[in-house]
Amino acid sequence: MDYGEEAIKRHRASRGKVSIVSKMTVETMDDLSMAYTPGVASVSLRIAADKSEVYSLTNKGNNVAVVSDGSAVLGLGNVGPEAAMPVMEGKAILFKSLADIDAFPICLATQDDKAIIEIVRALAPSFGGVNLEDIAAPRCFAIEDALQDLGIPVFHDDQHGTAIVVLASLINALNVTSKSMEDAKIVFSGAGAGGIGTTRLLVEYGARDVILVDSNGIIDRGRRDLTPIKEAMLEISNPRNIQGGLAEAMKGADVFIGLSVADAVTPDMVSSMAERSIVLAMANPVPEIWPDQARAAGAHVVGTGRSDFPNQINNSLVFPGVLRGALDARAPRVTTGMKLAAARALAELVEEPTAERIIPWTLDRNVAPAVARATALAWQEGY
Amino acid sequence: MDYGEEAIKRHRASRGKVSIVSKMTVETMDDLSMAYTPGVASVSLRIAADKSEVYSLTNKGNNVAVVSDGSAVLGLGNVGPEAAMPVMEGKAILFKSLADIDAFPICLATQDDKAIIEIVRALAPSFGGVNLEDIAAPRCFAIEDALQDLGIPVFHDDQHGTAIVVLASLINALNVTSKSMEDAKIVFSGAGAGGIGTTRLLVEYGARDVILVDSNGIIDRGRRDLTPIKEAMLEISNPRNIQGGLAEAMKGADVFIGLSVADAVTPDMVSSMAERSIVLAMANPVPEIWPDQARAAGAHVVGTGRSDFPNQINNSLVFPGVLRGALDARAPRVTTGMKLAAARALAELVEEPTAERIIPWTLDRNVAPAVARATALAWQEGY
Repeated sequence: MDYGEEAIKRHRASRGKVSIVSKMTVETMDDLSMAYTPGVASVSLRIAADKSEVYSLTNKGNNVAVVSDGSAVLGLGNVGPEAAMPVMEGKAILFKSLADIDAFPICLATQDDKAIIEIVRALAPSFGGVNLEDIAAPRCFAIEDALQDLGIPVFHDDQHGTAIVVLASLINALNVTSKSMEDAKIVFSGAGAGGIGTTRLLVEYGARDVILVDSNGIIDRGRRDLTPIKEAMLEISNPRNIQGGLAEAMKGADVFIGLSVADAVTPDMVSSMAERSIVLAMANPVPEIWPDQARAAGAHVVGTGRSDFPNQINNSLVFPGVLRGALDARAPRVTTGMKLAAARALAELVEEPTAERIIPWTLDRNVAPAVARATALAWQEGY
Repeated sequence: MDYGEEAIKRHRASRGKVSIVSKMTVETMDDLSMAYTPGVASVSLRIAADKSEVYSLTNKGNNVAVVSDGSAVLGLGNVGPEAAMPVMEGKAILFKSLADIDAFPICLATQDDKAIIEIVRALAPSFGGVNLEDIAAPRCFAIEDALQDLGIPVFHDDQHGTAIVVLASLINALNVTSKSMEDAKIVFSGAGAGGIGTTRLLVEYGARDVILVDSNGIIDRGRRDLTPIKEAMLEISNPRNIQGGLAEAMKGADVFIGLSVADAVTPDMVSSMAERSIVLAMANPVPEIWPDQARAAGAHVVGTGRSDFPNQINNSLVFPGVLRGALDARAPRVTTGMKLAAARALAELVEEPTAERIIPWTLDRNVAPAVARATALAWQEGY
């Protein structure tokens, strides 16, 4: 099917995807007197006297702002805030459908980090959490970092949603191939938000040999063209200081993680990997290498971002549950411990992992509640 | 009934009033492929190629931001953005219930005009219109003025919603009392956003003798304590340069318009007015003078802001319809012509005005559509 034309047709028919409803009826003057004046004055005064009551007397605690500046939308690049709207509406309805969160798309007409930080800070009274989305690296890192003291969780999905779903997939894939995180040689193609966020989380989980490859080759100690963020990644990556390109990085590797572009990987590169190799080729919609090619070249476990192959590694398995858990626990941020707990819970939902099943089905309704419970519990237990 | 306690109970039971729903189902992978990746990429690219498509392919064109900084909430004062939330949620559900507009409460953690202007500008891609609410004077004027070139209507309800509903009420009240706008002596108690916005609109409609009274007395040419906005009002008000307090202003007046505080008016002041006087005492919840007192003192037509007396003059008769009309016409702003048309349409909905019925019932479902049609038509016809 031509998803594109059909998608446009459906969006035009419904004029988008997100709508607002009232949780109180306004049919009678009595209703109006409760929901609006004069009754609402008492509700306001109650909150003015005890600010925490805003969580009980308004929808704030269930509201999530899905904030983007349209600078790195899907794989489409800097298409701007209007063109980001359908994607953020899509996130919003997944939040609702999978985790009963009231998410609203906020697409900003600025790409200035300071302005975005100031705006998100100013929006906080109306929201219980913020999902940052499709903001280009390296600005996305600075923006998220600056907002961690906001008092409500600010979660950059491109980094952490990706990191959590990849870690969960990898936990099961390593299990299936009898490898360990500590000993696995792991190669990333792509050192943007997803590659960097995922590397950090894998290292927290125990990975000790990660190599990042960007469009200029392996990130090594000889590179003079690195951004500060990529430079900092050398503290936790490339311990053997391997140099060269993706082909050199993949020689003997146990795990390939693709967060880059279509067709970046050749069958020869996969053949050069270690025995029982794991290939997670998540470029969308066309992966770094097609699953049949990867398997023919010797890969034992293969995942992609696509729904039409086994092992769809999609961060919609993560963001609804993680935000649900953070909101339920009223956690002021999403800690590393919460991310690790979310990944473990997601991995454990697959009772008997196989090469064809390392991760739950994307629309499995059990996923978000389980991820939410683990995320909330991790916060409550101090992780 | 104690509206306050009951209102708090109801708000706590439903945890506020506003929720989000999806207009597309996400049950199958096929649904997901249309609403989200990969299908949504085509929708984004279509908008990137033609920005106006955002109105057809997303909910933008039906979204209204209800923006407040919590600095002048109802009559409660500067209670802050959290305490403003229940009021803005109340506006949002009235927008939905009366005009099928998807309004979302945006309560800002800043009271700096420049910051608020910048934030509203940045939010514009996600919204078809903005309703500014409960922002203290005189900042509300500067903020609204600075946003008139935004390309979407930015409507300060406290000024213009009030102005339109008062003008509509007055059109019918003047008719009932056989007076004319041109000849009527009109006195305002209150020179905040409502008083100033309403004076301006009445003058546009033809009023020639308006006197504004603030907490320091009549705004006259001798006053040295006036803000620039109040100073500027002298160009269109107090032509006879009357001096003194509210009692002096009301002597011989045809119309009293109260947008001030409880009990500001005594029966003697009403008795000093002209024959067949009109008293619109809209302080909430306690009016400037109670209707029975005003009538006993000689007023012929009396209105208040309350639902438990005849002639409830409430701007919820206005803002849903005006924004609906502006969105339908895709007007980039709400012009004076649109405001006058909205007021006339609202007045005309009362087929045979009487002293007890100068304005439609607040929840009359015919009001918003009629106001919307008139507002849209006025834009389309160039007013």
